[in-house]
Amino acid sequence: MLENRIRREDLKGKIMSAAEAALFIEDEMTIATSGFTPSGYPKAVPLALAKRAEDGEKIGITLITGASVGDELDGALTRAGVLKRRFPYQTNKDSRNAINNGTVMYQDMHLSHVSQYIDYGFFGKIDVAIIEALAITEDGGIIPTTSVGISPQAVKNADKVIIEINTSQPMALEGVHDIYMTEKPPHRKPIPIENSGDRIGTTYIPCDPEKIVAIVVTDKPDKVRPLGAIDENSKKISEHIIKFLENEVKMGRLPQNLLPLQSGVGSVANAVLGGLVDSKFENLTCYTEVIQDSMFDLIDAGKVTVASGTSFTPSEEGLVRLLDNMEHYAKHCVLRPMEISNNPEVARRLGVIAMNTAIEVDIYGHVNSTNIMGSRMMNGLGGSGDFTRNAYLSIYTSVSTAKNGDISSIVPMVSHVDHTEHDVMVVVTEQGIADLRGLAPTEKARKIIDNCAHPDYRPMLHAYLEKALEKKTKHQPHVIGEALSWHERFLETGSMKMK
Amino acid sequence: MLENRIRREDLKGKIMSAAEAALFIEDEMTIATSGFTPSGYPKAVPLALAKRAEDGEKIGITLITGASVGDELDGALTRAGVLKRRFPYQTNKDSRNAINNGTVMYQDMHLSHVSQYIDYGFFGKIDVAIIEALAITEDGGIIPTTSVGISPQAVKNADKVIIEINTSQPMALEGVHDIYMTEKPPHRKPIPIENSGDRIGTTYIPCDPEKIVAIVVTDKPDKVRPLGAIDENSKKISEHIIKFLENEVKMGRLPQNLLPLQSGVGSVANAVLGGLVDSKFENLTCYTEVIQDSMFDLIDAGKVTVASGTSFTPSEEGLVRLLDNMEHYAKHCVLRPMEISNNPEVARRLGVIAMNTAIEVDIYGHVNSTNIMGSRMMNGLGGSGDFTRNAYLSIYTSVSTAKNGDISSIVPMVSHVDHTEHDVMVVVTEQGIADLRGLAPTEKARKIIDNCAHPDYRPMLHAYLEKALEKKTKHQPHVIGEALSWHERFLETGSMKMK
Repeated sequence: MLENRIRREDLKGKIMSAAEAALFIEDEMTIATSGFTPSGYPKAVPLALAKRAEDGEKIGITLITGASVGDELDGALTRAGVLKRRFPYQTNKDSRNAINNGTVMYQDMHLSHVSQYIDYGFFGKIDVAIIEALAITEDGGIIPTTSVGISPQAVKNADKVIIEINTSQPMALEGVHDIYMTEKPPHRKPIPIENSGDRIGTTYIPCDPEKIVAIVVTDKPDKVRPLGAIDENSKKISEHIIKFLENEVKMGRLPQNLLPLQSGVGSVANAVLGGLVDSKFENLTCYTEVIQDSMFDLIDAGKVTVASGTSFTPSEEGLVRLLDNMEHYAKHCVLRPMEISNNPEVARRLGVIAMNTAIEVDIYGHVNSTNIMGSRMMNGLGGSGDFTRNAYLSIYTSVSTAKNGDISSIVPMVSHVDHTEHDVMVVVTEQGIADLRGLAPTEKARKIIDNCAHPDYRPMLHAYLEKALEKKTKHQPHVIGEALSWHERFLETGSMKMK
Repeated sequence: MLENRIRREDLKGKIMSAAEAALFIEDEMTIATSGFTPSGYPKAVPLALAKRAEDGEKIGITLITGASVGDELDGALTRAGVLKRRFPYQTNKDSRNAINNGTVMYQDMHLSHVSQYIDYGFFGKIDVAIIEALAITEDGGIIPTTSVGISPQAVKNADKVIIEINTSQPMALEGVHDIYMTEKPPHRKPIPIENSGDRIGTTYIPCDPEKIVAIVVTDKPDKVRPLGAIDENSKKISEHIIKFLENEVKMGRLPQNLLPLQSGVGSVANAVLGGLVDSKFENLTCYTEVIQDSMFDLIDAGKVTVASGTSFTPSEEGLVRLLDNMEHYAKHCVLRPMEISNNPEVARRLGVIAMNTAIEVDIYGHVNSTNIMGSRMMNGLGGSGDFTRNAYLSIYTSVSTAKNGDISSIVPMVSHVDHTEHDVMVVVTEQGIADLRGLAPTEKARKIIDNCAHPDYRPMLHAYLEKALEKKTKHQPHVIGEALSWHERFLETGSMKMK
C-alpha cells in the first residue's frame, strides 16, 4: 500500500517511528508545520515531542503554522510546556489559555503575511518543517492532504523536513492542490490568476529529497470540530445579506452571479453561505480560505461552480461526506497555498465579497475581531484583514448581543481595533443591515445604532453620540473618558447595561 | 500658443470663461476633480463656482479628489458654503475646520479605494469632472499636469468633463505620465508592473470628446506649500532608519540597493528621504505617492534612478527647480493614476519599504494617523494604509513628544486606530527605533517604551504596563478604565503629565 504513498525508493529508508523523528527537534528550535484549521496538520510527531517533555526533557519551541491546528499539535505541546512562541493564529482551548495567562508569546498576524515573513527571514531560521502528506512523488514532491497553508514556504526554507504520510487521507485528494510560490522582491511576478478556479502551479510541493530526514506513517484522522446548528439569528443575518446582494445586482453594482464569495470560519459564516442554497443566485464562485460544509451543499445544489481555498474545514459529518465523495468535490475545488488564497493582489483583482465575523463593532464602523474586552485573545485575526481591505464589498456580521444580553456587540468605541472605519463597508446583525459606503462617521453611527444595535442598547448608544456631539470636535466625536466605559462596566458588574 | 495645447480643432469652440463653465455645476451634484496635494488641481472653475454661492445662489456639492488640493478648491468652496460632502483626504485649514465643526461630511478613505469606488458606482453618479490639463491631444486625450490622482476614472465615469488648460504648466511635462486603468471585476487583469519605472499605459487620459462641455484657459500656478526646514529630530529619525536598513542589508534581509522606497507627505518624510543623500546606498528606486524636494536631491546625487508617484509635491523653491529642469527630472520620474501608485498588488509585488508618519503610537504598536485626541481630524489617512499593509518593511515615524512635551506620542492606547498591530513592523522616534517583528504584544510594549518613548514618559508607561499585567488577561493587557486616561488628562489639564 505504501508503494503509491512513497513513490521514490531511496526515501523508504527514512521511514521511522514518530518518537525517532521527533528527535530531530531540539530545544529553542523554530518549527513550521502544515495545517490550516484542524485539517492537514501533523499529529504523530508533535505527540511524540510532547511525550519527551512530559518525560522530563527541557524543550521549548517556536511554532508557525498556517492557522489553527488540531489538539495533537497546539493542545499537546501547550500542555507539555513545549510551546513558547506561536504564530499566526490558534483556536485551541489550552493554547488560548496559555496565551492569555502570558506563558505563550503570541503574535496574531494577517495570514497573507506569514509565508513571506518566512521567505524574508523575519522569523529567523526555520529549523524543521513537519508536513502531513498524502504521498511523496518520484521527484520528492510532497502532496498535501486536506490543507496547504504555509507548507510550500516551510519546506522551501527549513533546514530539515519531516513528513507524516497519513493513510487515513484518501488518494482521491491527489490533484486538488495547486501549488504556486512567489519569488521574493525584487524578482516577484504577477500572480496569473484571473478566475477563482484558475490552476497556475503543480499538484505537489517541490522538495529537495536531501532535506527529508524522516518519514512517519500514521493514520490519525483530522480532529475536526463540530459546526453549530444554524440558529434563528444566523438565518436572519443570512437573509439580510442576501437581500442586500440582490439589491446591489438590481442597482447594477454587481453581476447577476455576484463576484467570488469569501466567508470566514465558523458557524455563523457557514450559515450565511448556507442561506445561498435557497437563493436565486446561480453560477456562484468562491475565493476564500476555508471550504466548510455549506460549500458542499452549494456545490451539490449546482449553485457554486468552483471554490478556491487553502483548506477543507468540514464538521465530523462533513468530513465523512467529503472523503466519501472526494472525486466529486475535487472537480469543483482548488486548494492553494495561503499566500495565494489570501493574497491581496488576487482578492482585489477578483473583487471578492468578503463576509467575516466581528466580536464587536463600534458606532463608527471599527471592528474588533480578536480581543474580548480589549485584552482576552479569542482566536486571532486570521485572513479577515487580507480579504476585507481588498474586497469589492466588505461585510461584517455579528449577533447584536452576547452573554444573554449583557454584552452589546455595538459599542461606543471598540476595545481593540482589527479593522478600521476605512475598511468596513457593511455591518449586519440579526436586527438589520447598515450600508456605510459614502457616509461620514456621525452618519455611520446613526445607521449602525438604528439598524444593527439591539433595541435594549439603542437609547444608550444614541445618548453617547449626542453627548459626544456636544464636544468641540464633531467629525468622529467621542467622550474620551466614557468611550470604553461600557467595557469597564461589564468587567466590574457583569453587564454593559446600567443598573 | 494654444495650438499645441488644444490639438483638436472642433474643441476650440468649447473654450469659455470659468464663470460660464461653472454653470454646468448645479446644486446637489457630485463633482470629481484632478489634483493630488496642491498639484494639478483645477483652480479657475472652482473659484467661479464659489463666487456664485457668494452672490447668493444656493449650491452644495459632493467633492471627490485624489487627495488634498489647493485653497482655490477646498478653501474657497468651504468658505462659500458650497462644500457639503468630501472624499477622501484634505489638508486645508478651512475645510478641516468645517469637518471638525460638523458642517462638512467627510469620509477619510484609503486612497487606493477611491478610483474603484468611482468605477463601482459606490459614490453614485459623477455629474461633472473638472480636470487640469497640460494639453488635449488630437483624439481628445487629456494630458495631466503635475499630478494624476483619480483623473482617469473621473473622466471615464463623469457625465460631463470640464478641462482647465493651465499654461503655467510647462510642456516638458508631456510624456512623464503613464495612464493605465484596471477593468472592473470580474474582468480585471494583472497589473503588469514589475519594476518601479515600468511604463504600461498611455501618456494621456483617454476621453470621448463628446463629453467635453467646456475648456477654460488659465495660468494660475499650483499653490504649493512650504516644507519645514530639516530639524534635529527629523535628522535623528532619518539616521535611525538608515542604520536599521544598513543592518537589514548586512543580515541578508534586503538587497544592497534596498527595495523601492515609499515615503509619506510632509517635512519629516522629506527629511527621512533626504538623509539618504549622504548614505552609502546606490541605485535606489522609489514607488510612492508624492515626489517631494528631497527626491530631486536624490536624483541629482545619482542615488535614485527612478521615482514613481502620482504627483510632484514640491515646495515653492522645489517647484521652480522642477519646472526649470523638467526635461531632466522627467527622465527619472513616472506619474501614475493613484489607483496604480497606491495599488496593494504592485506595492506587495515590488516589496516597498513604507515610511509613514504617526500622530501617536501605542505600546502595542497600533498607530493613529488621523484624529488628534480621538476626535479632531487632522488631514486623513492618505495612502499610508495602502503601503503599510503591503510593504516588505513598514516603518512609522513620530517625534516622541508634541506641544512642548505635554503630549507623548507613545501612549498606553491610541485614541484612534488607523493601522493595527498586525501592520506595523518598526516604530521610530528621535529617541530610537523599535523593531517589532516576531514579538508578542507585551514584548513590543517594553521595546517601544524603552527605545522610542521620551524619557519623561517612560516611567508612566512602564507603570501602566505593570498595572495592566496584574490583570487576568496578559496577552495584550490593558487597564480598560485608564487606557485613554492620558488623552482625558490632556483635554482637561493641557498636559498628559501628572501634576
